[in-house]
Amino acid sequence: MSYDVEIISVGNELLIGRTVNTNAAWLGRKLTVRGFNVKRVTMIGDNMEDISSAIKEALARKPRLIIITGGLGPTFDDMTSEALARALGRRWVINEEALKEVSEKYKKLNLNLTNHRVKMAKMPEGSKPLRNPVGTAPGILVEEGGTTILALPGVPSEMKAIFENFEKQLETIGPPYKFSEEYLMVEGVPESSLAPVLEDVMKSVEKIYIKSHPRGKEGLPRIVLHIQSFDKTLEEANMRVKEAEAKLKESLSRLNAKVKQVSPEEVEW
Amino acid sequence: MSYDVEIISVGNELLIGRTVNTNAAWLGRKLTVRGFNVKRVTMIGDNMEDISSAIKEALARKPRLIIITGGLGPTFDDMTSEALARALGRRWVINEEALKEVSEKYKKLNLNLTNHRVKMAKMPEGSKPLRNPVGTAPGILVEEGGTTILALPGVPSEMKAIFENFEKQLETIGPPYKFSEEYLMVEGVPESSLAPVLEDVMKSVEKIYIKSHPRGKEGLPRIVLHIQSFDKTLEEANMRVKEAEAKLKESLSRLNAKVKQVSPEEVEW
Repeated sequence: MSYDVEIISVGNELLIGRTVNTNAAWLGRKLTVRGFNVKRVTMIGDNMEDISSAIKEALARKPRLIIITGGLGPTFDDMTSEALARALGRRWVINEEALKEVSEKYKKLNLNLTNHRVKMAKMPEGSKPLRNPVGTAPGILVEEGGTTILALPGVPSEMKAIFENFEKQLETIGPPYKFSEEYLMVEGVPESSLAPVLEDVMKSVEKIYIKSHPRGKEGLPRIVLHIQSFDKTLEEANMRVKEAEAKLKESLSRLNAKVKQVSPEEVEW
Repeated sequence: MSYDVEIISVGNELLIGRTVNTNAAWLGRKLTVRGFNVKRVTMIGDNMEDISSAIKEALARKPRLIIITGGLGPTFDDMTSEALARALGRRWVINEEALKEVSEKYKKLNLNLTNHRVKMAKMPEGSKPLRNPVGTAPGILVEEGGTTILALPGVPSEMKAIFENFEKQLETIGPPYKFSEEYLMVEGVPESSLAPVLEDVMKSVEKIYIKSHPRGKEGLPRIVLHIQSFDKTLEEANMRVKEAEAKLKESLSRLNAKVKQVSPEEVEW
């Protein structure tokens, strides 16, 4: 059973560097903590063919989940929903439940249901709309083969609100793993000297991954080690992280390194 | 002639949401202003097969440029250089010029050339190393078919320094376009009412693209319009943006919208 996830972030503003993709990082964190394996993030522009290709390519890799953000609004360049229908080879139709949600919102604002507004209620056939408690465009939930596809708005507050409402359902399809982590700040040893130590610890402790993040220079080395483990229970994952930490500290003291535990907030990412 | 660019950002920390991908945004901005068309950003983990596939897929789309960031360091999970060699079907060999740069750096630090350090001088056959004025691992420049491939370190200060040294060369391969842009803050009209106005202006002014970014709620709408143009000279591009701005303001005043020009720094992206 795969617990792979792919995220597809849609929007020219991401490609031209106007917007930094914080949505993908937020989702990546949420999904990792739940034990999912985020395999790939694809950022693509507001272009029907590009979006549709990116979705088809992701589907072909058979992840458990595909989460798409952006391109659900009323303007001409919001085309994620139609591109999704094309990628799935399904008709793009008005979803009655979504239309009800959208029309009620505009009714409250005393605004007519123009074509641009109705568009936000169009979805691939067989979709389920996900209520948007913050903005107007509903999210889209649709299943294809073994993959659950979620399309969410690109505005972070809307994306987060819809995702958090959906999160409970992730428990039923999510992996039986828990994630544990810890951060060590290591000073006085260049990354190239740490490299063999990390390999040794990863060989001797199961289910442990250690990533090194250089934050100084090779002459004045300051390296953050991110120790990570996935295991069946949080207790087991925590135990493995503690074991790796102890072994690291032992080896690093032999290299005369200064080591201290830090919180992720203390690190300049 | 294609002026497409693809960016491939390598690193588990991006996928698990520990690091926000500011490198891609920085590069996207730099390349857009030079007239390049950033088509896709792929974020992928520290995995030989995944990196190599992502590079092969990008090459198959025949962009003018592929820029890869991350995975050039000395640790076991730095595998971009070898994955690039695999994707190109070339041997992964010690580059003498790179080895000279790396050995000189460690000599100054009184450190031996271990295998982990020599690794940073290994590159696909036919590559040119790009001097790293900040850290240790040199960047990699390699040509394949009509595509120029650049591999840069993931540490932002190192990535930026190497890219900025290389930038002069972009002029010779870059497009004959210039980029102009302006931002308008529009208040009092929901995005769904703006949608037809944007379409009209884009139909009546050539080479203009307008992206709307909702920053309020549909009931209390506040929308940033990003007016963009690519044209042969900066003067022509500026002129088109001004023309679109005038037409927008005229139409928006008929909708009783409050419109003012803003700088990108005033906008909450």
